[in-house]
Amino acid sequence: MPSLADATRGRILFGGDYNPEQWPEETWAEDVRLMKEAGVTTVTVGVFSWARLEPAPGKRDFGWLRRLLDLLHTGGVEVCLATPTASPPPWLGRLHPGTLPVTADGTTLWWGSRNQYCPSSADYRRYAGALVADLAAEFADHPAVVMWHVNNEYGPVCHCEETAERFRGWLRDRHRTLEGLNSAWGTAFWSQGHGSWETVIPPRSAPYLPNPAAVLDFRRFCSDVLLECFTAERDLIRLHRPDAPVTTNFMTLHPHVDCWSFAAAEDFVSLDSYPDPADPRAAVYASLGQDVARSVGGGRPWMLMEMAAGAVNWRPVNRAKPAERLRLEALQSVARGADAIHFFQWRASRSGAEKFHSAMLPHAGPDTPQHRAVRELGRELGRLGEAVGGEVAADVAVVLDWPNWWALEQRGRPSERVELPELLLAWHGALWDEHLTVDYVRPDADLRRYRMVTVPNLYLADDPAVANLVAYAAGGGTLVCGFLTGVADGNDTVREGGMDARLRALLGVHPLEWRPLGEESAPLTGLDGAATLWSEALRVEAGTEVLARLADGTPAVTRRGRACYLATLPDPALLRRLLGGAAAAAGVRPEVEGLPDGVEAVRRGGLLFVLNHTGAAVRIASGAGRHEVLTGRELPPDAELGPYDAWVLR
Amino acid sequence: MPSLADATRGRILFGGDYNPEQWPEETWAEDVRLMKEAGVTTVTVGVFSWARLEPAPGKRDFGWLRRLLDLLHTGGVEVCLATPTASPPPWLGRLHPGTLPVTADGTTLWWGSRNQYCPSSADYRRYAGALVADLAAEFADHPAVVMWHVNNEYGPVCHCEETAERFRGWLRDRHRTLEGLNSAWGTAFWSQGHGSWETVIPPRSAPYLPNPAAVLDFRRFCSDVLLECFTAERDLIRLHRPDAPVTTNFMTLHPHVDCWSFAAAEDFVSLDSYPDPADPRAAVYASLGQDVARSVGGGRPWMLMEMAAGAVNWRPVNRAKPAERLRLEALQSVARGADAIHFFQWRASRSGAEKFHSAMLPHAGPDTPQHRAVRELGRELGRLGEAVGGEVAADVAVVLDWPNWWALEQRGRPSERVELPELLLAWHGALWDEHLTVDYVRPDADLRRYRMVTVPNLYLADDPAVANLVAYAAGGGTLVCGFLTGVADGNDTVREGGMDARLRALLGVHPLEWRPLGEESAPLTGLDGAATLWSEALRVEAGTEVLARLADGTPAVTRRGRACYLATLPDPALLRRLLGGAAAAAGVRPEVEGLPDGVEAVRRGGLLFVLNHTGAAVRIASGAGRHEVLTGRELPPDAELGPYDAWVLR
Amino acid sequence: MPSLADATRGRILFGGDYNPEQWPEETWAEDVRLMKEAGVTTVTVGVFSWARLEPAPGKRDFGWLRRLLDLLHTGGVEVCLATPTASPPPWLGRLHPGTLPVTADGTTLWWGSRNQYCPSSADYRRYAGALVADLAAEFADHPAVVMWHVNNEYGPVCHCEETAERFRGWLRDRHRTLEGLNSAWGTAFWSQGHGSWETVIPPRSAPYLPNPAAVLDFRRFCSDVLLECFTAERDLIRLHRPDAPVTTNFMTLHPHVDCWSFAAAEDFVSLDSYPDPADPRAAVYASLGQDVARSVGGGRPWMLMEMAAGAVNWRPVNRAKPAERLRLEALQSVARGADAIHFFQWRASRSGAEKFHSAMLPHAGPDTPQHRAVRELGRELGRLGEAVGGEVAADVAVVLDWPNWWALEQRGRPSERVELPELLLAWHGALWDEHLTVDYVRPDADLRRYRMVTVPNLYLADDPAVANLVAYAAGGGTLVCGFLTGVADGNDTVREGGMDARLRALLGVHPLEWRPLGEESAPLTGLDGAATLWSEALRVEAGTEVLARLADGTPAVTRRGRACYLATLPDPALLRRLLGGAAAAAGVRPEVEGLPDGVEAVRRGGLLFVLNHTGAAVRIASGAGRHEVLTGRELPPDAELGPYDAWVLR
Repeated sequence: MPSLADATRGRILFGGDYNPEQWPEETWAEDVRLMKEAGVTTVTVGVFSWARLEPAPGKRDFGWLRRLLDLLHTGGVEVCLATPTASPPPWLGRLHPGTLPVTADGTTLWWGSRNQYCPSSADYRRYAGALVADLAAEFADHPAVVMWHVNNEYGPVCHCEETAERFRGWLRDRHRTLEGLNSAWGTAFWSQGHGSWETVIPPRSAPYLPNPAAVLDFRRFCSDVLLECFTAERDLIRLHRPDAPVTTNFMTLHPHVDCWSFAAAEDFVSLDSYPDPADPRAAVYASLGQDVARSVGGGRPWMLMEMAAGAVNWRPVNRAKPAERLRLEALQSVARGADAIHFFQWRASRSGAEKFHSAMLPHAGPDTPQHRAVRELGRELGRLGEAVGGEVAADVAVVLDWPNWWALEQRGRPSERVELPELLLAWHGALWDEHLTVDYVRPDADLRRYRMVTVPNLYLADDPAVANLVAYAAGGGTLVCGFLTGVADGNDTVREGGMDARLRALLGVHPLEWRPLGEESAPLTGLDGAATLWSEALRVEAGTEVLARLADGTPAVTRRGRACYLATLPDPALLRRLLGGAAAAAGVRPEVEGLPDGVEAVRRGGLLFVLNHTGAAVRIASGAGRHEVLTGRELPPDAELGPYDAWVLR
Repeated sequence: MPSLADATRGRILFGGDYNPEQWPEETWAEDVRLMKEAGVTTVTVGVFSWARLEPAPGKRDFGWLRRLLDLLHTGGVEVCLATPTASPPPWLGRLHPGTLPVTADGTTLWWGSRNQYCPSSADYRRYAGALVADLAAEFADHPAVVMWHVNNEYGPVCHCEETAERFRGWLRDRHRTLEGLNSAWGTAFWSQGHGSWETVIPPRSAPYLPNPAAVLDFRRFCSDVLLECFTAERDLIRLHRPDAPVTTNFMTLHPHVDCWSFAAAEDFVSLDSYPDPADPRAAVYASLGQDVARSVGGGRPWMLMEMAAGAVNWRPVNRAKPAERLRLEALQSVARGADAIHFFQWRASRSGAEKFHSAMLPHAGPDTPQHRAVRELGRELGRLGEAVGGEVAADVAVVLDWPNWWALEQRGRPSERVELPELLLAWHGALWDEHLTVDYVRPDADLRRYRMVTVPNLYLADDPAVANLVAYAAGGGTLVCGFLTGVADGNDTVREGGMDARLRALLGVHPLEWRPLGEESAPLTGLDGAATLWSEALRVEAGTEVLARLADGTPAVTRRGRACYLATLPDPALLRRLLGGAAAAAGVRPEVEGLPDGVEAVRRGGLLFVLNHTGAAVRIASGAGRHEVLTGRELPPDAELGPYDAWVLR
Repeated sequence: MPSLADATRGRILFGGDYNPEQWPEETWAEDVRLMKEAGVTTVTVGVFSWARLEPAPGKRDFGWLRRLLDLLHTGGVEVCLATPTASPPPWLGRLHPGTLPVTADGTTLWWGSRNQYCPSSADYRRYAGALVADLAAEFADHPAVVMWHVNNEYGPVCHCEETAERFRGWLRDRHRTLEGLNSAWGTAFWSQGHGSWETVIPPRSAPYLPNPAAVLDFRRFCSDVLLECFTAERDLIRLHRPDAPVTTNFMTLHPHVDCWSFAAAEDFVSLDSYPDPADPRAAVYASLGQDVARSVGGGRPWMLMEMAAGAVNWRPVNRAKPAERLRLEALQSVARGADAIHFFQWRASRSGAEKFHSAMLPHAGPDTPQHRAVRELGRELGRLGEAVGGEVAADVAVVLDWPNWWALEQRGRPSERVELPELLLAWHGALWDEHLTVDYVRPDADLRRYRMVTVPNLYLADDPAVANLVAYAAGGGTLVCGFLTGVADGNDTVREGGMDARLRALLGVHPLEWRPLGEESAPLTGLDGAATLWSEALRVEAGTEVLARLADGTPAVTRRGRACYLATLPDPALLRRLLGGAAAAAGVRPEVEGLPDGVEAVRRGGLLFVLNHTGAAVRIASGAGRHEVLTGRELPPDAELGPYDAWVLR
């Protein structure tokens, strides 16, 4: 099996998306020159080139791309070649209107932007497949091409009749019979029973709340259908180039597809990461995305496919990114497993919907602080070859499951304030504050290698998940579970008793009633802190210790053996103390003891990355005498790590 | 005529919606056993059973329902049998797409939720009618069935061409000629004149504000069309069971249909009441709904068809309901005329869009505080048989009219902050604070039995309404009118002078200009308090007393004889004093003098209900020595009514 | 060429919209009597009369209009005759569904409101043209008719296939070839290249951000298509009445059409002005609209076509307008170039969507403060004949360009908080506070007559615009430019370097990175005040003076010779000082020195208008001894101008 190592070959790759079709060919030469000066090793080419490669149905125009690849190759820049299937040309929608996606309310989405394809459309798949096959045949052996990038940020959804037909097939595979479907969806509720497959449709605009199990299955289906699109393209590439690794890029907290199943089909994982410079917890957000990218790939090195050199263009206010934080973001990614750092994009577009998005080479040109920071980063990454392939050590696991996310965040739930990303960020942030590195794991993963497993939320827990958690605890593992966990089975049916009986036994609790909180927080007794977001009428079994209670005595945090249950979201300081305390009790230690707040230390292979995410210099005694790779110097006894500065220690 | 008494037969009914199709038949027996233990007298069955009863077009599957009814009957639980026409099965929409409703912007609403029917659709009506006819034929004589529940919370609206055709017929009936229609709608404005009936359509998406008279007539039509659906089903039931009472359930402040006309067609009124536990005025909101339910039924006993044992699932944050408040809500309903207390629903659903909605029997099972509270309530209601059929005494009336509501709350009005529910809650709450029980009345009702009539708002006042109010005042009645009353006639045409001349003469005022307020309040002189929401340039005729003025001298509260005019919404304390003072002057006395704030006393027949809606215990001297029915004890001289506790005194 | 002078003939016209079709003919006589008593000179008739004039396709009913015109003529009221084409009758949409507009998401907009026409529809144009031709033939020579009003507040947009076809033709004219189109739109981005004209469509609902150049061209096209509609109607009128002036009415900050191109096609400009009485800066907002109205007409007298005597009906809360401010608004308009003051509308409608809109004759009738204020205004305007035709003097120009507005405010920009109207109001308000009168100018206008030219924003600056500004500065003019100016060319393509090189040279700056601000403001050094909304990484060339810096030293306000660059939006006080200082340095003086804040002094011809927009009386020494035209008195030495009062000094 090919892997990212086939492309890195001992180097941290450095580069970005490059869209040469936006520029006259005379600009290409300048680009290659500037790339080399900046230390660029690789560029991703062709992500949005369909209309240029196939200007009319079936026509091919590959000459320009060959000229470009030749030029890059001559210039010593390698290529991640993209399939352009995320943005069909206008002629496809006109020729085959069925390729245009339709929203739940029946609105057709037209060309003129990007992503206007129905992933179930046979016409779309036929044209996409033919083009990818020809691209692979044409360029698979080009010496510049070292890896492949399929499509872009998979996500399109359609509700058309062709989608319905494919959905029915998927449902037959999953539920076998109509009786199975009706039972899994609970269609006895509100008279939704299907007497024939013909009435089964995607969830569309309706007078009131949709069937949640149908919505859940539709989201599973949408992920699977996009995965079919991915694997079809991947296989066409492999036909011609079995040894070149193939990826498609996720986004941080990518909601559209199940990244576990996608990652399993990729040769390596790649990630687009856009923390908001205005977010004081941007480093937490970024590290979560990085840890997920590494984890869904089973710990293999991954690629940061897109980051921004400065501002993005899609927030209401797009803040600039200070140069030192751009460097820190990149090093943080390497620390957490990235072997490639790419930006969106090389040269800022002068036209189109992203002309206000920053780039490695901004509108104002190379003589700018931004481009200088990019070049400096290129130089530094060039010194980090020994990081390549290194494994990231983590003793703590966080359970993450896409169907759970899709089931949890539906309409008509106990509280719309309960959202999985917020819970993940709260738990991840608490562990980050404690300087602990985490892996993300599937609910049914082998957990034995972890000293502690945390479950911010697992509302939907199917039988294998429940059995797995129970077995882990039975084996002596430390387990910390958040509220509203184990409520539903894999079909989003509430389990008898309102929570899985095995988990109730394990945790020694029984939630009797959900009592979500509003904006207010509720002071706790027993522990110093407050409950936020959620509370429960909780029955505690004999032998279960109550660590904290609400003012009226209701248990809020409990422990039974090594298993803790958090019947609320403790305020950030308390959550940090709780998780940190549980980890310490489980024998988990941070890489570096006594780090100040906001300073991150991550071990990757033989290297220790120390990253100061604060605006103040800090002294870290334990670095003394160690070799710092970026500067090549040995750290003095009183070494000071500057604001937003980093060390890579051997 | 059948009535609720045919079902109650001296008992307060107690039970809830029961959806046996969601459960295996082995669960039914457990349900019946638990129902009996909880004191359940009745359950409502079949509200959403269409797909189960008619699994394919024209097919019938009634066997399971017969088995269930037999089981319930054997177990001693009676049945309110529902027609399942609120939620057609998927096959109906597929077979007859015209049965699916269409929004004003042309979006089709699909199956997969509930309520997906166009009430004007002949196909829908034909299938609904055939099924109801067969249901009635099959089960009318079943000994378990004591009453019928038609459809559910009527409200669906459609804008399709079949609706347009029916709308035209309705308009011909109302306006006779095209000239009559054009005149009533004021189509001379903005060139909207119809030269033929063919161009008359429901109000659909348009570039700017719609014709308000057309919108008003369309809402009247929508109510009437749903009433046709109701009466058609009712008549089919009566064919087979002329003596079983038939109802359909309203919601509190039900906006969709004219409850006066619906109630007139029902054998008894039923209500779904969902006060928000987080609302500090929840008791006011609930009592308003209860008083309206009693009033639209002409004072007859009514049924609380749905209440929640705990949280609902459709608010952004669904707060839990303390057990003592669940009991208080039920007793408050009985106090205000309910002879039946039903919950949505008996057993919490494990699937579907309402699986997070509380129930009498929660997910966590019978051994829970919630279920114990339900059982305790069942026991207590069992002691209140003597309340059944009792009349509620009220000396104060509040005018309530649906077409007025529909006319008032259109786009392009003086202030979007003026909303009828807010005005009703303010006035109702002020009278509730004064411990006064009110009836709601139609604008053309016989008012002579009331010492005081209040009109929070009657923007649209047709000639009979105006004449009625004038006659009431002429007969010596005390009348209190809110602002923006008497502005328009029945076609939403502004009356000459901007306010009906007869009302101007009666009140001795002439509003010359509307001057709505924003968030700010304006201090008053003459009375201690402030104006909110509204003010007017008001001309006051000789002989009219000005009780309060704005700082610039503009009259804000006036009195002419026994008729008061409020040219603003006084702040809550002042509104309470104004209405309380007017009531006192009219000779209205509360049932119990000197009650603390938040304690409610309502007389029903021979019983006095005293309900403490506050979290503090209170002493009420006047109870001393009286028999308290719930406990069976005689109240001691220094009796204390606990927080959220209640007495029922004989 | 006809002009407004043909209608004014030495008088300030006074009147309003009059919709006689809403009233029985017996009311007409009363109206004419009351008009005469109120000093009404003119009424606008027929704006929404299509359905009455053409009750069925091709049928004509002109008799009622002739009777009305005769009556008005006899009564001495002249007529601005309107074409009724803004609101087709229902039959047109039914007969030709293609005339109904379609939104970007495919929703049809129906009749039942107004404006339901697709401006590209050949059917609409044919029916509109035929009716206008007949109207003109019938009434062009009627002695009451002194001017014509075409359509109303042009703005409808459609996305249908007929629109697409016309759009393609427009694009062929603009870009000549498909290659030209692809290049101008930058379709290489996101694979949007068109291989044939057939795939070119209006921007419709799409999965993500649309192509900004396509959106910009579509907005240009929409403006041009409406201009075609206007000129077609104008030419039909001219056929029959070449000497009667023709207009169509704009709104303040009219976003839909390019008012420069429309004004060039009109005989005179007319404006609808609706400042919000609740807006403390309402006088600034109103004066901006007035100055634009005068400026787009090249300084010619214009007509205030619509103002409100009191409240409007389309805001969430529609505040009443104090009588003194109604007078001040009218006088402010005359001061700034209006020779006609019309209201919407004469008599308040009793039906329809605007029945809550105020009028000259309110619902409450003539015996009201509002109507008395109207009459008093009529009397006062009758004394201002000498103002007619006078020119307004301005030494300062503000650059205003519609394509720039359309380009600036697209999705995906650096900050959604940057909106042209807010910038214009800030700059206009700063100059207004400094008591300076401004003209608005096209970017390519002859600027030599102005001592100072200000550019609040010119994000999109095509080559003629850039050359014009450069030439102006080269000629010694004082230029003040706001941030994000000169970024894009006429096709919304970012210029090389991120800002036009000629402007960079002129201003001596180079913005290297945009750094928009959020709600916070950033203190400045060098000048007393703060930056808001925006900042930049700004390189300053040698010879450029930095007047203010952010705390980190980044330049925020610069000057190079007579050219200033504002790399932020200074807080209001600082912006006022900056613009006031620059103006003073350029030799610009207010009409009256030493005026208090909130008092406006504008010279028009031989008259000086002094308007007190504050609630406090002020003393203005310089008025002493001058003749005040409204009162006919000579101002005493210690003359006091009352709150909201005005002088017109000769």
